[in-house]
Amino acid sequence: MSSFGHLFRLTTFGESHGAAVGVVVDGCPPGVELEVEEVQRDLDRRRPGQSRLVTQRDENDAVEILSGLYDGLSTGTPIAMMVRNADHRPGAYDHLRDVYRPSHADYTYEAKYGHRDHRGGGRASARETIGRVAAGAVARKLLATVADIEVLAWVDQVNDIDAEVDPGTATFAAVEADPTRCPNPEAAKRMTGAIEQARRDGDSLGGVVTVIARNVPPGLGEPVFDKLDADLAKAMLSLPAAKGFEIGSGFAGTRMTGTTHNDPFEPGSDGPITTTNHSGGVQGGISNGADVICRVAFKPTATIASEQKTVTTAGEPTVLAAKGRHDPCVLPRAVPVVEAMALLVLADHYLRQRAIDTIGRG
Amino acid sequence: MSSFGHLFRLTTFGESHGAAVGVVVDGCPPGVELEVEEVQRDLDRRRPGQSRLVTQRDENDAVEILSGLYDGLSTGTPIAMMVRNADHRPGAYDHLRDVYRPSHADYTYEAKYGHRDHRGGGRASARETIGRVAAGAVARKLLATVADIEVLAWVDQVNDIDAEVDPGTATFAAVEADPTRCPNPEAAKRMTGAIEQARRDGDSLGGVVTVIARNVPPGLGEPVFDKLDADLAKAMLSLPAAKGFEIGSGFAGTRMTGTTHNDPFEPGSDGPITTTNHSGGVQGGISNGADVICRVAFKPTATIASEQKTVTTAGEPTVLAAKGRHDPCVLPRAVPVVEAMALLVLADHYLRQRAIDTIGRG
Amino acid sequence: MSSFGHLFRLTTFGESHGAAVGVVVDGCPPGVELEVEEVQRDLDRRRPGQSRLVTQRDENDAVEILSGLYDGLSTGTPIAMMVRNADHRPGAYDHLRDVYRPSHADYTYEAKYGHRDHRGGGRASARETIGRVAAGAVARKLLATVADIEVLAWVDQVNDIDAEVDPGTATFAAVEADPTRCPNPEAAKRMTGAIEQARRDGDSLGGVVTVIARNVPPGLGEPVFDKLDADLAKAMLSLPAAKGFEIGSGFAGTRMTGTTHNDPFEPGSDGPITTTNHSGGVQGGISNGADVICRVAFKPTATIASEQKTVTTAGEPTVLAAKGRHDPCVLPRAVPVVEAMALLVLADHYLRQRAIDTIGRG
Amino acid sequence: MSSFGHLFRLTTFGESHGAAVGVVVDGCPPGVELEVEEVQRDLDRRRPGQSRLVTQRDENDAVEILSGLYDGLSTGTPIAMMVRNADHRPGAYDHLRDVYRPSHADYTYEAKYGHRDHRGGGRASARETIGRVAAGAVARKLLATVADIEVLAWVDQVNDIDAEVDPGTATFAAVEADPTRCPNPEAAKRMTGAIEQARRDGDSLGGVVTVIARNVPPGLGEPVFDKLDADLAKAMLSLPAAKGFEIGSGFAGTRMTGTTHNDPFEPGSDGPITTTNHSGGVQGGISNGADVICRVAFKPTATIASEQKTVTTAGEPTVLAAKGRHDPCVLPRAVPVVEAMALLVLADHYLRQRAIDTIGRG
Repeated sequence: MSSFGHLFRLTTFGESHGAAVGVVVDGCPPGVELEVEEVQRDLDRRRPGQSRLVTQRDENDAVEILSGLYDGLSTGTPIAMMVRNADHRPGAYDHLRDVYRPSHADYTYEAKYGHRDHRGGGRASARETIGRVAAGAVARKLLATVADIEVLAWVDQVNDIDAEVDPGTATFAAVEADPTRCPNPEAAKRMTGAIEQARRDGDSLGGVVTVIARNVPPGLGEPVFDKLDADLAKAMLSLPAAKGFEIGSGFAGTRMTGTTHNDPFEPGSDGPITTTNHSGGVQGGISNGADVICRVAFKPTATIASEQKTVTTAGEPTVLAAKGRHDPCVLPRAVPVVEAMALLVLADHYLRQRAIDTIGRG
Repeated sequence: MSSFGHLFRLTTFGESHGAAVGVVVDGCPPGVELEVEEVQRDLDRRRPGQSRLVTQRDENDAVEILSGLYDGLSTGTPIAMMVRNADHRPGAYDHLRDVYRPSHADYTYEAKYGHRDHRGGGRASARETIGRVAAGAVARKLLATVADIEVLAWVDQVNDIDAEVDPGTATFAAVEADPTRCPNPEAAKRMTGAIEQARRDGDSLGGVVTVIARNVPPGLGEPVFDKLDADLAKAMLSLPAAKGFEIGSGFAGTRMTGTTHNDPFEPGSDGPITTTNHSGGVQGGISNGADVICRVAFKPTATIASEQKTVTTAGEPTVLAAKGRHDPCVLPRAVPVVEAMALLVLADHYLRQRAIDTIGRG
Repeated sequence: MSSFGHLFRLTTFGESHGAAVGVVVDGCPPGVELEVEEVQRDLDRRRPGQSRLVTQRDENDAVEILSGLYDGLSTGTPIAMMVRNADHRPGAYDHLRDVYRPSHADYTYEAKYGHRDHRGGGRASARETIGRVAAGAVARKLLATVADIEVLAWVDQVNDIDAEVDPGTATFAAVEADPTRCPNPEAAKRMTGAIEQARRDGDSLGGVVTVIARNVPPGLGEPVFDKLDADLAKAMLSLPAAKGFEIGSGFAGTRMTGTTHNDPFEPGSDGPITTTNHSGGVQGGISNGADVICRVAFKPTATIASEQKTVTTAGEPTVLAAKGRHDPCVLPRAVPVVEAMALLVLADHYLRQRAIDTIGRG
Repeated sequence: MSSFGHLFRLTTFGESHGAAVGVVVDGCPPGVELEVEEVQRDLDRRRPGQSRLVTQRDENDAVEILSGLYDGLSTGTPIAMMVRNADHRPGAYDHLRDVYRPSHADYTYEAKYGHRDHRGGGRASARETIGRVAAGAVARKLLATVADIEVLAWVDQVNDIDAEVDPGTATFAAVEADPTRCPNPEAAKRMTGAIEQARRDGDSLGGVVTVIARNVPPGLGEPVFDKLDADLAKAMLSLPAAKGFEIGSGFAGTRMTGTTHNDPFEPGSDGPITTTNHSGGVQGGISNGADVICRVAFKPTATIASEQKTVTTAGEPTVLAAKGRHDPCVLPRAVPVVEAMALLVLADHYLRQRAIDTIGRG
């Protein structure tokens, strides 16, 4: 289904070349101050055309809030938000009607649904993430209101360029200072060069986004299926082009041993704290008060200008090369989307914990 | 919540030292032939004491089917299955009542619930996975009945020992031939040595399980949040000790470029097929008919015999060393659990696709 | 939450005096032919101002389909539909800001949410049902496509006027022939007189809507909680002003005895059929192939022009009389909404049965 | 599915003649004091053989709690409870293998599932309600712990005998004082006579159960689909033999007019209160602090000793008369089940309101 979340639940709608894309956010508690500009701000971070590194498709992606606010506050009822699709080019996708683009969802949609909207990827388009980012902005405001939870993501790797950013000191300002959204200026510069070269080569690059959540209170997440990290994994793998997820030590941690991997506890001012954070802030699926740190792998963009072998819908071999505007590397625009997904998961579990924490604990 | 799945849904119950652990499988269609032995077979692959590599805790884990079968067939109503907890040792856990084990869920449970069953990890115990494996056995039978879908997992890495198994040719027999559940005999031998050394050292090892699903028809998975790979990611990260998930090229693929990463299509006998499988059998969240291949990272077991720094529930620093029986490496026993989770996700999406595929496609 | 349905699921949004009201329909299978006019047709049957019997609030309620259709067919992805709220009268609701209208949701919203949009009932407004009716139009088309399921509702009682309509012969044409939506012309005439008198008296009337579903195949509905009649009951009681629900013999059947109430079976051309239908087409929560017949009780409209005792938000006693335009009897406009709810429940269970009916029954 | 509830969720399992019936209660907050005797007490009120008015099938229905409690307190994890089926009579149901009992679920199960367990109704058996009652006992304890919410049901009508009980003064003691569970002794006596006569006649009787919830705080229930009364309606119609549901004035209220039906507000010590309660304690789907009052219609028991016309599974006409033990009137045993369903709905909405009430309302 097109819904995500148990108590803080979003439902997205819309395809790349339909009338609009949008989202219904259900379950946001009443009393959250929200202005449309706060939603727009996050949308502007994911929109095309924001820098020369990303696709030049021209969409200003202006959001309209259709419901759920009154007198500047959430009412507790669904918050519907919508962005009109503006940049229609009739005929621009005619050449894709009868061919399956490699490593896109063209063939799989056809296998699933029997027919499909071939224009711009339809529902598989990254435009669907507009609704997620808008919903994420609501979650961000909620989490800032009820706690000081702060979520920050950045580009940590592009192709073979590793930024080696210290999660403890990364800031929003440093991330936004460069179009790559890599807070390490030296790495950012090399990433820029690599992305521009890929564009010139008709090629594309992948990479890794790291996301950190600070000030997460201990106790969020449920012990079995709805572990905090399990929900984060689903959230991240539900993003277009995502191929991997790690929390804390992740795959690298599999090469450590228990004596060095275990996070020792020491007394803290407000309960026990760990002196290392290989757990990534989550133990047994539940937050422990340390920073929640995850990494998300994105494959190289499937749309490339170089020629590729493929087949037509009639089953004939053919050759295809993408025309027009596209991202040689989705990483910079993926950053606000990854943040949104982390915010949505945390908001949901924050509300769930309210219900669990019902009986006084004298 | 303790439920997983939308149409093929399991609900697990029970903690390590309660009366029983079990599962209710809801939504299994009527008409699946099932015998209790088929469930027991998979449970025997995860149970303690099965080899000298795993914990010697002695549980025969005999399953009882409480409902949902009649005349050897599923009836379409809930299949409840239960395993009694046998190996109670009163007092064995008294020393853990007032201390938080590092990198376990002790502290986080207390933060979440205010009180906890300290015996054997309670609900966070790996015994909870008994219900998953039993449910997975039902899913396995369903998928074998309606299609020829086959799911196979194996140990691909232990600490720094990489098995380099060819997913295309791995067999159940080869996996089960060695207690490590690594189908590469040479690697298995080295893994055995490493695990035994870790036990002697009072240490523990992590690693990677690879899982493959063969004969998955194209079209399974939903395009936005409930992508096949997103649900697999959640399923795997919901396992105890899991820290990472990859599908297809995963993190390594982020270092490739689009021209080499894209999977070219060529005509196949039954629709287009890809000549490479960096996608891991899933494109846009939907299966494309190629093998679905995932990798799951497991951290080194948190329970170790070596001394570790921690704090008491009263907030005092202390030192803890595990007593008794435990797994120096969970990987061999994780194999059937990883299989179960993949089976459960596939069964759910197989049924969901039935509803989507409602209108004739002439 | 603002969602309804398991596989065919709608999510409504919007309040009376916000920017728009609408719905996202998720789970409609691909391949359903749908035109915006088919949705508009049902909306026109519920809109204000359609006859002199209903409120004269002037809304043309023109629907826009935002997503989910391509080339005139559903794509399988969410169908979002929206109606702009047009008839804003700034200040028209100022006198309701600080007072709780009796038997409205004013006080309960305030108790629940702490603050509320007092204009026109906000989310409790009957305008919320626009989204339901639009979604119902999609369900109607789906059910007509996959089966010949037909749903028809009518006004069966207004205050003490009982229409005594034969469910077996009622037709859409007869229902729509009179603004009361009562297919018995003589009763319709008396209802009209009663409604007009109530308006003159500053009073309001309640009544009963009967709904019938024909050609429902046997087997829809699930045996325990999601019984077909249980879901219909929830659907109907979720409507504004609904106070009761019956299926088949309902409350009257409690005064019969088993020997006369039981529906005898006799052989039919296509399986057993019942010679009476006290069951209302549902036995054990599952359709039996007979007509599904339900009745829904609606209380007299809470908004009346007569003076009523109430209290202010500050807790002071006061007196209130409604101003402006309102329905003295909601029954005629409730008819398409009741149909929509029945259609939505049937569509959901039709799809669910697809998944259950997975294994060949040779 | 076999689950009910969003945050306080039960999943029942088991059929009449399988090994066991039971329930998993998920989402009960930690810290609820619960003893097995408290669950057994409610089960004893629904069990067969408790009085000469009900079926003499001999089941002592001893419950075992399998998980979710530690040191006498709920842990926050699933509470699984099970009752073994004891009274198996091999062959007792052989005569029902090839025939459809009128107004039972025999034919509809076969239409739905293709095959069925014909023994004692299988999953449609009233034994399924054991799980509901056990779960209801947990909800009762939770609601008593967090608020003083009290739920009481009684038999208000049997066939044409109306008890005319004052809901405001009915007590548990008065209800339990008579095997009919009608707190009006004079009516109870007549009901007893009618039920005994029905048994002698090989016939059966229906009736109405009224249920009241006291001390429900204002604000429970959600405004659109998950209205408190909508969820109650679903809960009640999901019970075997239920054919109707009313809240407050119900069907009778449709014959009143707005001026008399509206419930005037007056100032109360703790917010506004209504001077009448036609609303039944719910306005706009949300509790208003008044008593929640509902009525549930139960049809005459379908199992009767008299001969009835029916057909065989092969489609041949035949005649059937029930053998053995059965209830000539389910009403007395339905009382604790109706209470359980009301408790479950209230517990769920109580927890949901916790999440909504997240932001301070100073």
